[in-house]
Amino acid sequence: MAQAILINAFEVPDGHDDEFLEGWEEGKRLMERRPGYVSTALHRSLDPTARFRYINIAVWESADAFQAALTSPEFTAYRARIRFTHYPSVYEVART
Amino acid sequence: MAQAILINAFEVPDGHDDEFLEGWEEGKRLMERRPGYVSTALHRSLDPTARFRYINIAVWESADAFQAALTSPEFTAYRARIRFTHYPSVYEVART
Repeated sequence: MAQAILINAFEVPDGHDDEFLEGWEEGKRLMERRPGYVSTALHRSLDPTARFRYINIAVWESADAFQAALTSPEFTAYRARIRFTHYPSVYEVART
Repeated sequence: MAQAILINAFEVPDGHDDEFLEGWEEGKRLMERRPGYVSTALHRSLDPTARFRYINIAVWESADAFQAALTSPEFTAYRARIRFTHYPSVYEVART
């Protein structure tokens, strides 16, 4: 099965970087111990006023593995506490 | 100088994939011949209803090289014809 690429764009207002990063680290700790987790890379815009200040790109062994982690009770509780608007979806590389 | 990562999220309504892909290919042809271009990968969501149906991730040798290509007359003219809402910005990897 092809690897799944989770891309999650976050709207983080200027001055809220520390709060966002603390939450991101907590989410990473929850996800990286789940079956099928491969890697993650948090991207920060060079422009502090970009619509999406942070974009997380994570790789999972499969979309099913990611969905199972996403819907776990502990991650569901974590997500409910995220105060930043975000747009997660699973992607595949379509063209290079 | 660190490589620059351009991430560009596109809102593409259901049924407009062919039109979008044709435009993306044209943009790629313009960019890949500019100095400092390294690579690009167009990501498509597995969910056709995702807010961002396509996310392009391109690597450039530097943010300056990308900005020079972005502001070239031919690319400026190309961008003016893009009908899909999109959110480009240059990123660096902040955490892994």
